[in-house]
Amino acid sequence: MKIGFQGAAGAYSETAAQRAWPGSETVALDRFEDVFEAVRSGRTSHGILPVENSIGGSIHRNYDLLLERDLPIVAETELPVVHNLLALPGTTIQAVRRVFSHPQALAQCELYLHTLPGIEIVATYDTAGSARMIKDGNLTDTAAIASLRAAEVFGLGVLQAGIQDYEDNITRFLLIGRDGKPLGTADKTTLAFALHNGPGALFKALSVFALRDIDLTKLESRPARGRPWEYVFYADLSAGREELRCGRAIVHLAEFARWVKTLGSYPHAMPIAVAPVDK
Amino acid sequence: MKIGFQGAAGAYSETAAQRAWPGSETVALDRFEDVFEAVRSGRTSHGILPVENSIGGSIHRNYDLLLERDLPIVAETELPVVHNLLALPGTTIQAVRRVFSHPQALAQCELYLHTLPGIEIVATYDTAGSARMIKDGNLTDTAAIASLRAAEVFGLGVLQAGIQDYEDNITRFLLIGRDGKPLGTADKTTLAFALHNGPGALFKALSVFALRDIDLTKLESRPARGRPWEYVFYADLSAGREELRCGRAIVHLAEFARWVKTLGSYPHAMPIAVAPVDK
Repeated sequence: MKIGFQGAAGAYSETAAQRAWPGSETVALDRFEDVFEAVRSGRTSHGILPVENSIGGSIHRNYDLLLERDLPIVAETELPVVHNLLALPGTTIQAVRRVFSHPQALAQCELYLHTLPGIEIVATYDTAGSARMIKDGNLTDTAAIASLRAAEVFGLGVLQAGIQDYEDNITRFLLIGRDGKPLGTADKTTLAFALHNGPGALFKALSVFALRDIDLTKLESRPARGRPWEYVFYADLSAGREELRCGRAIVHLAEFARWVKTLGSYPHAMPIAVAPVDK
Repeated sequence: MKIGFQGAAGAYSETAAQRAWPGSETVALDRFEDVFEAVRSGRTSHGILPVENSIGGSIHRNYDLLLERDLPIVAETELPVVHNLLALPGTTIQAVRRVFSHPQALAQCELYLHTLPGIEIVATYDTAGSARMIKDGNLTDTAAIASLRAAEVFGLGVLQAGIQDYEDNITRFLLIGRDGKPLGTADKTTLAFALHNGPGALFKALSVFALRDIDLTKLESRPARGRPWEYVFYADLSAGREELRCGRAIVHLAEFARWVKTLGSYPHAMPIAVAPVDK
């Protein structure tokens, strides 16, 4: 397996891929769009995408891309996240004037960041990339929030370890492939759908699953572009796409939905213990 | 009325308050928490909070605060959003090295920002505050994304008007008060609730509304703090809290929900035309 991920070496996505699929090769890519493009073009066999964090909620951009780019989900995995404040060796916390990181990482360390007086918070495209910017620019007044692995990769020191505000910080990742063949026996399915407006529309949509004893493990809504206050729904079902009841539920939903699309069917990830682990 | 808002003079929240409740006094406050505190302490009679944007989705922090702080929603309003690139008079687009704004405003101008080569994107706490930072710091290499009113207030020039990527950019605001008395006849109600895990849990929850012909105009889920992958749901109902069917639906939901809380009942806002309007 050759797995593309967004960010620099040491990104949480890379760690998640290496843990879930040991021995696979990882490829660092600039943007989430590039992860999809690498899979589409055959440069990589798979791509890994963070889609949800137990503290921050969904990473909506990746749901939007899953719908747009038409590459199926074939697996999922989870990773406990431990954030650390990193800086060049010799930089002290007192010398830090700016902190770089991804907006979700900044949000997950908000209480801690408020204890650092008078710093500028700078949102960047990824956590490990922030560590690289400090290394490349020799920025002695700047710290990054990133993994311990990013500290190793870019030769930074750890000013403070485990700075996330909440311990139970877990990120869920989806693996996309070119064909829809799941990595194992599929027992979970992700759908996107849009409904016609009207009383009870969502209730009717959920009934197609409830009437067949299919549990929803997640339901998320996103504004539909170009139609204010209309929504696209993303649902995770606790059933594989090949199960008869699941196929029937989707056909039933399609009877009255504006549209329905299966984003993939795949084996569910084992729940992981909530414990501060990194590297 | 004396309405607290988060941000500096010229913030979209201030404009929304002045349009919806003409003649009211507005009070600029640093953080969303301060808006709640001002209402609680009596410093202001009301507070205005952006909760949802038709492009970016929900402003989750404010939903979390509505649940935590226990101040009722008494009204809602909507405002079309037009973003502009502002800088000190004399600064040209070519001279701009950094762009300051709120993360949602930055996200709503993402396509436009990608056309500006080699700029640093800096996330700040508010749009109008970014304009003020440029004025106060005399920053000749920095631009802000903010309203035309912020340009007037802080004496900045408009490098480019209407830079948002999508025209149908509308923000919805809620007004909170100290007592729950709605500003008009309440025909809309916002609830928060949590469910016990189990098949069909959300379906059952929505049935209490569908069986009474109460439409849901919005359903949003947020991770529950301290319980990975458990969710708090926020629902907007098209019925006033005083209507018998609404009261009965809430009592019915409470029979099997983990907990239910009414965040407020208030008159729904008139839908607004999608047209580029500002000031």
